[in-house]
Amino acid sequence: MGSQPLIDRVTAGEPTAVARAISKVEDNAADSAELMKQIFPRTGRALIIGITGSPGAGKSTLVDKLAAFYRKGGERVGIIAVDPSSPFSGGAILGDRIRMQSLALDKGVFIRSMATRGNLGGLARSTIEAAAILDAAGYQKIIIETVGVGQDEIEIAKTADVCVVVLVPGMGDDVQTMKAGIMEIGDVLVINKADRDGVLRTEKELESLLSFLAHADWQPPIVKTVAIESKGIEDLAAAIERSREFQKTAAASAGRRQAIARWRILELLRERLVARALAGDAASEKLDRLAAEVASKKRDPYSAVDELLATEQ
Amino acid sequence: MGSQPLIDRVTAGEPTAVARAISKVEDNAADSAELMKQIFPRTGRALIIGITGSPGAGKSTLVDKLAAFYRKGGERVGIIAVDPSSPFSGGAILGDRIRMQSLALDKGVFIRSMATRGNLGGLARSTIEAAAILDAAGYQKIIIETVGVGQDEIEIAKTADVCVVVLVPGMGDDVQTMKAGIMEIGDVLVINKADRDGVLRTEKELESLLSFLAHADWQPPIVKTVAIESKGIEDLAAAIERSREFQKTAAASAGRRQAIARWRILELLRERLVARALAGDAASEKLDRLAAEVASKKRDPYSAVDELLATEQ
Repeated sequence: MGSQPLIDRVTAGEPTAVARAISKVEDNAADSAELMKQIFPRTGRALIIGITGSPGAGKSTLVDKLAAFYRKGGERVGIIAVDPSSPFSGGAILGDRIRMQSLALDKGVFIRSMATRGNLGGLARSTIEAAAILDAAGYQKIIIETVGVGQDEIEIAKTADVCVVVLVPGMGDDVQTMKAGIMEIGDVLVINKADRDGVLRTEKELESLLSFLAHADWQPPIVKTVAIESKGIEDLAAAIERSREFQKTAAASAGRRQAIARWRILELLRERLVARALAGDAASEKLDRLAAEVASKKRDPYSAVDELLATEQ
Repeated sequence: MGSQPLIDRVTAGEPTAVARAISKVEDNAADSAELMKQIFPRTGRALIIGITGSPGAGKSTLVDKLAAFYRKGGERVGIIAVDPSSPFSGGAILGDRIRMQSLALDKGVFIRSMATRGNLGGLARSTIEAAAILDAAGYQKIIIETVGVGQDEIEIAKTADVCVVVLVPGMGDDVQTMKAGIMEIGDVLVINKADRDGVLRTEKELESLLSFLAHADWQPPIVKTVAIESKGIEDLAAAIERSREFQKTAAASAGRRQAIARWRILELLRERLVARALAGDAASEKLDRLAAEVASKKRDPYSAVDELLATEQ
């Protein structure tokens, strides 16, 4: 069976087909590149929202409430939760379990966790491909949630149409440092848990930091939310919409789209090159042998790579 | 000038030479592979300690106090702070500034921040190479500090001889989820800010989580610290030492060293393959053109990569 039936079922919006397609790209199945070539021309209708921020900022609750808001408007919503925290056991099990209660019974919502798999990377690629599949399946709003601390996670959030950075009042210096970094990627800034002490101070700090950033002609709005009480969600949705409208007209967004495209090509290229270099039993045996030699200090990793490259086709 | 004089100066422990060597690997300079081939046989004497944990856990203070403890014993200490949080402006400026006060005047301490550079990866590689350079330069203790949330950051911490995971009492559910993930990589677990409420509960949770993990014959000790008051630092150093001693004898550690070696080879391979594929003006112009075509949806990223691969030597 080719992937033609699957692509038709995805396009028809069948959740089981969507799930199967995402598993294919996650597993890097043999026919996944062909599938994605068919998916790609069918994308571009959805609004893809990246939501990122430090652990404990309440991102999951915010995502749930935003999804519920879009559902009230009758839109279908896809949620992709990127969970890089389980290098071995894989999967945001707890996150899923909590979500089950509020959203998972709703057939208009598709929820998927993406976890790090193996050593060959591909989390960023497969997350973006999952979003493309949901787009082709007719989900109007797609929310990608990442923990905005790792470099891959930040890259993923940047590829969204609108990137939302979630902060909370009164965190430590560590977070203050980080703030400056992740703020630069935010089209919309959220101060969540805005019923806590220190909101005004955090807001002032953000405004002051924003004044230093060269954000061309878009001034990222600061939205205050108390996600757990569903407060400020409508404002957030409005800010996201304004950012998207702005980008449609802005000259800057052509450059942004090109930077994203470039990054996607490089991610794919990297993965394909490594897969090709290590294809076949001989290459994989050689890698095992070289790893053993490097581990026992009989050889350095650089000449090991030289040897792998010398024999590669 | 070849790299021979530099390697001699690094081996002699000259801080300016160490700094220059690290800059070379960070910038992926033309002669950096040759330099690292010379560095590699001179490594293996230092104890490399990875310290990771969520933002706000007080890692920086803990690292400073641990470094001060080792200094009291007369050992030279290298600190590498991995800062993935500034994708654009780069660098843990605030972190460095705070450290200046306590450690930076001490000539027996070498401090370096590593930040994400560009799109082609290499943060993990250059961090590990920086540790190797410090090892060759005779620093006896090398501490690599990462924010344990991103997948790269977790990989980096895993490559250390001893990986310390820092937690704090009473954080949100987000952190609880993460905990299970990062705990799996910890040889030593620290509950920092142990003067706060909820320490006992956190300790019980950790013990219960640990009982589920298949940690072979090593049971990660749980150390309580109040880093800001220098409390528990000696216990931490002792736990790190025990973990290292255990690993010297354990059969499991051979497998671990081989997994690390394998990962290092793959990181280098990935970087070299992409650099080779994009070498030359023609390839880089082609990438620009393909990125523009993908951005304007004239082409999908998969066939763009096909085209890049088809012409690559």
